[in-house]
Amino acid sequence: MVGKTKKSARDSIASKKHSIVRDEILISAAQLFSERGYRAVTMDDIAAALEYTKSVVYYYFKNKNDILWQIFSRCVEKYSSDIEEIRSQDLPCEISFRKMIHRHAMNVMENPAWAAVYNGEESELTPAQRQQLSRMKRDYDTVFEAMYQRGVSEGLFREIPPHVAVSGILGMCNWLYAWFNPKGALKAEQIADHYTDLLAGGFRLAGN
Amino acid sequence: MVGKTKKSARDSIASKKHSIVRDEILISAAQLFSERGYRAVTMDDIAAALEYTKSVVYYYFKNKNDILWQIFSRCVEKYSSDIEEIRSQDLPCEISFRKMIHRHAMNVMENPAWAAVYNGEESELTPAQRQQLSRMKRDYDTVFEAMYQRGVSEGLFREIPPHVAVSGILGMCNWLYAWFNPKGALKAEQIADHYTDLLAGGFRLAGN
Repeated sequence: MVGKTKKSARDSIASKKHSIVRDEILISAAQLFSERGYRAVTMDDIAAALEYTKSVVYYYFKNKNDILWQIFSRCVEKYSSDIEEIRSQDLPCEISFRKMIHRHAMNVMENPAWAAVYNGEESELTPAQRQQLSRMKRDYDTVFEAMYQRGVSEGLFREIPPHVAVSGILGMCNWLYAWFNPKGALKAEQIADHYTDLLAGGFRLAGN
Repeated sequence: MVGKTKKSARDSIASKKHSIVRDEILISAAQLFSERGYRAVTMDDIAAALEYTKSVVYYYFKNKNDILWQIFSRCVEKYSSDIEEIRSQDLPCEISFRKMIHRHAMNVMENPAWAAVYNGEESELTPAQRQQLSRMKRDYDTVFEAMYQRGVSEGLFREIPPHVAVSGILGMCNWLYAWFNPKGALKAEQIADHYTDLLAGGFRLAGN
């Protein structure tokens, strides 16, 4: 029994370490891909950035494509579970939709390197990966579109095709990866607030 | 005199042909870059797409970077002259700003391949080109920001930092290159109308 417990403690530590190193490699690789472009980065570069040998990286990932795919799938999983969490709170439509926009903008700004890869390197995935990603993105957009449609049905939201509204809204937020500066005067939270207000109320002040 | 006239007519035809072939190469290269990414496309591919030999392409452009730079500089020049034309009409602030947004969205949708290169391949430019582009982009944004600021000063526009509003607005429009489908149910003009209305008035219907 004692031996078994020790073994399972060792296994648990090993498994934690495995997961930490995997995360570390993904974070570092996303940074490199976002700075230099996926194609320009080699497995050697990824290893060197962490002062590992290449064989360590190959122990955790099959190849460079495997790393890229993990970045994409983790990104979309995180985005989706955050939005699902808001949707499941059953809040009034406008509050829910505002929270969803705010969260999406925050997710882009909190991990700009991941967002840059997510939004700029899709053409580097395999056809099967692109297909799977496209389904996951579609599901994500559908949650937003259904909420927008609910707002229109309840007479609260502007009547424009939900996919047009949602593509525009998410597009505005996605673009943040290209210009948001974490060291800038405005914090991510403030920018997300401004964006949500602008999208909800428009730039034109009511009453003009 | 007769000989001279003939020569100048020949020169004029040659110069027109030169300009047409240059345009043709740029349009075709932008398409290839947007589909496969700049790095994956060779001068051979660019020549082959037009059934030219590579030497024809080299007659018109120094190298692949020269082609890329021409795509960027023409893009920003077209965007800028269109916006300047609207600004110079001295229209009321809101009308002017709406027209500028509408025109920007149309420019993205009318040349999605150029917009894809413009928005996705900046890292492939030389440092000097990037610097020059950055100044041109800054000037472009400044026209929008000044108009937004005017709207705020006149008490017409929502008081948020102009660069935040403008980055968001242009970001929403830029994103169109990633999803706009020229063969889709909605025409570019209709999408630009929806975007302008959404940005001006917000998704939330007034009075709720």
